[in-house]
Amino acid sequence: MKSPLPDKIDTLFINCNLATMTGNALSIIKKAALAVTGKTISWIGREKDLPVHLKTKCQNLIDCDNSWILPGFVDCHTHLVWGGSRSNEFEMRLKGATYGEISKKGGGIFSTVKATRNASKNELYNQASKRVAALQKQGITSLEIKSGYGLNLETELKLLDVIKLLDENFPLHIEATFLGAHALPPGFANNSDGYIDLVTDTMLPQIKTQGIAKAVDVFCEKIAFTLDQTKKVFETAKNLGLNIKLHAEQLSDSKGAALAAQFNALSCDHLEYLSLDSAKKMARHHVTAVLLPGAFYFLKETQKPPVDTLRNLKIPIAVSTDLNPGSSPVHSMTLVLNMACMLFDLTCEEALLGATINGAKALGLEQTKGSVKIGKDADLVIWDIDTPADLCYLAGLTPLKMVVIQGKIHHDNNLKP
Amino acid sequence: MKSPLPDKIDTLFINCNLATMTGNALSIIKKAALAVTGKTISWIGREKDLPVHLKTKCQNLIDCDNSWILPGFVDCHTHLVWGGSRSNEFEMRLKGATYGEISKKGGGIFSTVKATRNASKNELYNQASKRVAALQKQGITSLEIKSGYGLNLETELKLLDVIKLLDENFPLHIEATFLGAHALPPGFANNSDGYIDLVTDTMLPQIKTQGIAKAVDVFCEKIAFTLDQTKKVFETAKNLGLNIKLHAEQLSDSKGAALAAQFNALSCDHLEYLSLDSAKKMARHHVTAVLLPGAFYFLKETQKPPVDTLRNLKIPIAVSTDLNPGSSPVHSMTLVLNMACMLFDLTCEEALLGATINGAKALGLEQTKGSVKIGKDADLVIWDIDTPADLCYLAGLTPLKMVVIQGKIHHDNNLKP
Repeated sequence: MKSPLPDKIDTLFINCNLATMTGNALSIIKKAALAVTGKTISWIGREKDLPVHLKTKCQNLIDCDNSWILPGFVDCHTHLVWGGSRSNEFEMRLKGATYGEISKKGGGIFSTVKATRNASKNELYNQASKRVAALQKQGITSLEIKSGYGLNLETELKLLDVIKLLDENFPLHIEATFLGAHALPPGFANNSDGYIDLVTDTMLPQIKTQGIAKAVDVFCEKIAFTLDQTKKVFETAKNLGLNIKLHAEQLSDSKGAALAAQFNALSCDHLEYLSLDSAKKMARHHVTAVLLPGAFYFLKETQKPPVDTLRNLKIPIAVSTDLNPGSSPVHSMTLVLNMACMLFDLTCEEALLGATINGAKALGLEQTKGSVKIGKDADLVIWDIDTPADLCYLAGLTPLKMVVIQGKIHHDNNLKP
Repeated sequence: MKSPLPDKIDTLFINCNLATMTGNALSIIKKAALAVTGKTISWIGREKDLPVHLKTKCQNLIDCDNSWILPGFVDCHTHLVWGGSRSNEFEMRLKGATYGEISKKGGGIFSTVKATRNASKNELYNQASKRVAALQKQGITSLEIKSGYGLNLETELKLLDVIKLLDENFPLHIEATFLGAHALPPGFANNSDGYIDLVTDTMLPQIKTQGIAKAVDVFCEKIAFTLDQTKKVFETAKNLGLNIKLHAEQLSDSKGAALAAQFNALSCDHLEYLSLDSAKKMARHHVTAVLLPGAFYFLKETQKPPVDTLRNLKIPIAVSTDLNPGSSPVHSMTLVLNMACMLFDLTCEEALLGATINGAKALGLEQTKGSVKIGKDADLVIWDIDTPADLCYLAGLTPLKMVVIQGKIHHDNNLKP
């Protein structure tokens, strides 16, 4: 079935190959053309099906020289606003220090919390904007950022403000998630219920009032918060009409994924220790599984997430950088694609679906982002590759020619209109 | 001891931090300045020790805004000229195909040999130049490239010609290594001695005559060539006055490293199965150990090279991309730095020494490349980092501001003179 022709074309890409990422597959169209009208995709198909007069009339005709166009990457799980630096801890660990020793020296997440609390909004913005710029240059056109290094009302709001500013100032789309229940802050030792009360009774209502986060996330794990505490946060979030996400089963089977499924969570993330029973609940409630191979790699984990179970149950699998200073300082989606294949045994097609349409699903953005479809946002990346698998295979290379966000061209490396 | 001041400065970098990579350490100078005269470094030291009149007189004064300057990376082991593509094999393996099955379908190294033989010099040059450009943009200023996908005289010479052309056309320095004894070519089944005769009696003399390779390498391994065959190649190479390198003990202990040491090899590379006895011989003969974590990662190996032994024996450790289409499609030195730390337990300092001065040692270039020293080539990279460890820690990020090769500025991302 051929698409109807648009009345008006602002930008027309010709001589390209498309991997549209529709129908749960690469869904390739070779010798293709793609039209953009305003901010959205207005036509896709084989170039020979495009009437010549449309080409000759188009002011902004871009010859892609047989390059590939894929939807922009959707990085659905990051913690990229933080203060301070932890490369010194990386070096300490390489020299043999244990996590306990590093923690005693003031390291670990609490060093980040302290530095984040002490940093001004401006300092946090400047540090984070370098990271966002780097991700955008690598083909990420939608991004989620979580708070969670404040762990008090003032600093969590400061983080969410910075995320809002980043969204306003960068062309790529940013979703903010509130992760107040990330770790137990100093001052609440032996009183984790007290901290959860602060999250549910004070922080969440404020965040709802200010409208600066669309989703709520919790770290449900032995070293973080219990299933009951997680449930309390979810109930409050649900009453406030916020979306739900969960850091679940990363280090042990805490049954968090099953709980999140009952709350119709958008996604459960990490999932190395996911049980079959919880996976079935995720499938029933259409929860996306977000796999984070960067954290697996940096923490030298050995238990892989149950990818075969996810496949069998047809649970959408997303992949993401998890960009954070402690367990995943990974700044590249192509590196994540490679690690998803090498470490978690995804196929290239699965990894690419994970970085595009399934990343969009994990954020509830699948109606507008993550695939190349008429009517969707024209968030596109043009790649100098022979085949989409190259994006997973060529480790450390990001052979990007152009990034297009909502129809506007950014990072034009090689192609000239 | 302060350095004498140069009579003439062409470019002066101020407001920088130097990691000079001298004395087997980072050897940091903070609040530094660095002067370049012609192609070489003419002064380094603390900026306050630099007379003001030198600054005011310098036409090309570059304020580095507190950035770090390190020597350009030396990537001492690559196979980056090849024909065809093997990303399809990567996908086949992810879908469960074994090496044997891939080989039966015409895959593996022989698919590359076939495609390389069929490719024109122009095609090979165009493909390889993209890779060289990518490496140079990532801060590599010296590079070794091996032949070895021809496995007949004509194609090996074609590969070495392409390497020569790349060296002529790119600013970075390229060393060519002849790796005729890379794999047994089709047509020589059950006659590996016959192929070695071809290498020693025909190929090597031709290569010497044409002067298009400075070193000779062999893959000494059960699946490649025996110790005796390796010895024969080395004897010929030695008689012709060519340097010696070896792919040694990657998959088993073949005693190749001990043999290479007897021939005063520049380097032994891979070394996962290196024995203490062979390591002692390497130390005695000042052979550099080249570690290749990309191949370890892509082949999913589990036996790590004996890094503690190398440390104890004070053997210089280099690290390199091993860029090749089969076992290490790794296009980034910062990714190699990260993998050297994460997979082989090098410290950040060791990894950085491995990518600079010890990479230069592996190529016999330590008199002119690999460290920041007066009189050495001004091959420098200016990095937007807080500490050199960031280059190992920030996976997938190459926060490069400027590349300087023999005093000339390339890839100026942020700094303007």
